[in-house]
Amino acid sequence: MYKAKVYVTYKESILDPQGAAIKKALHHLNYQEVQKVSVGKYFEIQVADGGQKINEQVQKMCDELLANVNMETYRFEIQDDQEDEK
Amino acid sequence: MYKAKVYVTYKESILDPQGAAIKKALHHLNYQEVQKVSVGKYFEIQVADGGQKINEQVQKMCDELLANVNMETYRFEIQDDQEDEK
Repeated sequence: MYKAKVYVTYKESILDPQGAAIKKALHHLNYQEVQKVSVGKYFEIQVADGGQKINEQVQKMCDELLANVNMETYRFEIQDDQEDEK
Repeated sequence: MYKAKVYVTYKESILDPQGAAIKKALHHLNYQEVQKVSVGKYFEIQVADGGQKINEQVQKMCDELLANVNMETYRFEIQDDQEDEK
């Protein structure tokens, strides 16, 4: 069993209104040191060992479903899942 | 300058309909090996060095704004930000 951790964020050129709103809210809470906030999606996917190359599989999942490759970029990490310590 | 990477996910006991829907969609795309999908939020926060302990600051930001501590758990990593390599 593998665990893929996928991080999807907007490309630099894409406006991130949610990030701007959160930055403003943090400033209201007196966290003036906050310079920039980017918001993204985080996926944890448990994949049984199907024999295929896990990296290629996860990359295809990202390209086909998890990320909008026109506006977003993604990166992922694969763990050989001996029950992630909680 | 620091960069905090914050990962917010649902607690185990909380239903994750979005994760279930994505799992179903991945099965439709023939990724039958996918066993479980969890969806969460991912934040990248750039924080100027305000002298205060960065870890405590980020933890408070999570408790006060970024995570709903009743339903979600969070973890974060702090990088001393020499321009994260792209």
